[in-house]
Amino acid sequence: MIIVNTGDGKGKTTAAMGQVLRSLGRGWKVCIIQLFKGREFYGEQTILKKLKGLKLLSFAPKHPACFRNIPEKKVRNECRKALSEAWSVIKRNKFDMVVLEEFNIAVRDGFLKAEDLLKVLGAKSPAAVVIVTGRGASKQLIGKADLVTEMKEIKHPYRRGITARKGIEF
Amino acid sequence: MIIVNTGDGKGKTTAAMGQVLRSLGRGWKVCIIQLFKGREFYGEQTILKKLKGLKLLSFAPKHPACFRNIPEKKVRNECRKALSEAWSVIKRNKFDMVVLEEFNIAVRDGFLKAEDLLKVLGAKSPAAVVIVTGRGASKQLIGKADLVTEMKEIKHPYRRGITARKGIEF
Repeated sequence: MIIVNTGDGKGKTTAAMGQVLRSLGRGWKVCIIQLFKGREFYGEQTILKKLKGLKLLSFAPKHPACFRNIPEKKVRNECRKALSEAWSVIKRNKFDMVVLEEFNIAVRDGFLKAEDLLKVLGAKSPAAVVIVTGRGASKQLIGKADLVTEMKEIKHPYRRGITARKGIEF
Repeated sequence: MIIVNTGDGKGKTTAAMGQVLRSLGRGWKVCIIQLFKGREFYGEQTILKKLKGLKLLSFAPKHPACFRNIPEKKVRNECRKALSEAWSVIKRNKFDMVVLEEFNIAVRDGFLKAEDLLKVLGAKSPAAVVIVTGRGASKQLIGKADLVTEMKEIKHPYRRGITARKGIEF
């Protein structure tokens, strides 16, 4: 099964992490491959690292939109390394669930090709579950996915000038 | 801050649980009050119970739509008990975050009144965060909330006749 969490609203990553928790609770083995998340920036990372059955990998910790001094070439290389790691993890089929965090962003921003991501997903065994998150999921990915949810912003405090808060947004 | 996860798509509960994980990772104290979830039905429950800083309470484990032999009066009483517990938890202000799982459903199905839920939310201290989940959030709640996300179903395998799978849906 291929699951996609996309859209402009909050909840794409947190829903994937809640899903990971649920699956671990069933004794599944889970691998999370994160892009653009930093290695210690998100609150959940410290807890996830301690959970049994979970492997957490992080690539391209900085996105050029947030850090202007990061050369795009470096980001592209790291995204490619992450995709190649994803391929290897999915191909070896040692995990029941693989989460590809923010891979949609990497495709949307031209660091990865949509068709290369699809090739990696094509290597998955029928029983395995892959979750791809990030806004701007490609049409090709939505076409191939089994379950697609759009997290749609109805109301957001950013609109009222309230900034991201530790514990909530990261 | 009041956060609402609603809509017909997947991800309302899992996003709340991912949010809990993030907040616990920041050392927050979190209380989850669940309706209609059973006590051991969901995969995440076994892991949540073990996490430090988290209190998990469960009421009205069976919804009449799923279990036809459950008298509505019993469900209404349990929902009221849950709301009264929520009030007490929020009022005492010992938790940084309180999650009211599926309380929207209880309001939608007439087991709780929208205005009674709003009264409970009104008892919260300014710094505390309350998350309310469930499809069919009331207009009053959306009006009062700071952050509202609609989880919108774009594609779902149920439509192709595939049934809920352990580890994914529960």
